[in-house]
Amino acid sequence: MNKVNLSEKFSLFSEHWTPKIIAELNDYQIKIVKVKGDFVWHNHSDTDEFFFVIEGTLFIEFESKTMQLDAGELYVVPQGIQHRPYAKEECKVLLIEPRGVVNTGEADSELTASNDVWV
Amino acid sequence: MNKVNLSEKFSLFSEHWTPKIIAELNDYQIKIVKVKGDFVWHNHSDTDEFFFVIEGTLFIEFESKTMQLDAGELYVVPQGIQHRPYAKEECKVLLIEPRGVVNTGEADSELTASNDVWV
Repeated sequence: MNKVNLSEKFSLFSEHWTPKIIAELNDYQIKIVKVKGDFVWHNHSDTDEFFFVIEGTLFIEFESKTMQLDAGELYVVPQGIQHRPYAKEECKVLLIEPRGVVNTGEADSELTASNDVWV
Repeated sequence: MNKVNLSEKFSLFSEHWTPKIIAELNDYQIKIVKVKGDFVWHNHSDTDEFFFVIEGTLFIEFESKTMQLDAGELYVVPQGIQHRPYAKEECKVLLIEPRGVVNTGEADSELTASNDVWV
């Protein structure tokens, strides 16, 4: 593979809530996503989920609190925990998950995206 | 776990070539490291290795070429590939590897660091 420049990769798409694969690490995938507005409540019953904010501010709502992640901050949502990401303004996020994870987890939603798109 | 602020974590240590764990994702670990000067030639026979440059410039020498990674750029060194990282000036890097990986891989070196230190 070639090296990956994040800014360049983010410039190649504009839609929200559709993670794109930019690299693979063993059986894990590194993805980037632009988010804005509300996502759905969901969980991933079989995996933790890594969020690293590259630009902007991401909120992750949990049942008992809401976490604010600014640029340069990261969080790992534990397996099975219900959560709802949202962003008031467009926010750029790097995700790491095992290959095959669906963005909406156990939830059935029109926001469910393909989990096999590279950029 | 709490959220992790990268700048804050980097401010907590100054030594080079000693990766510190900042989060875990299933059986993978997210680590940060400050590097400057020359590392040793090594490879990891059982895993890929993820490098993401947060600040500065990292070079990774391979047998047939040298790759330059500036801030905002990432690369996954494939399993088993001989490589030698180096940095002319101090560089801050985020690493992702399976739990238990040793920084010098198959090489025997005085740069071998503990693989179980959190910051």
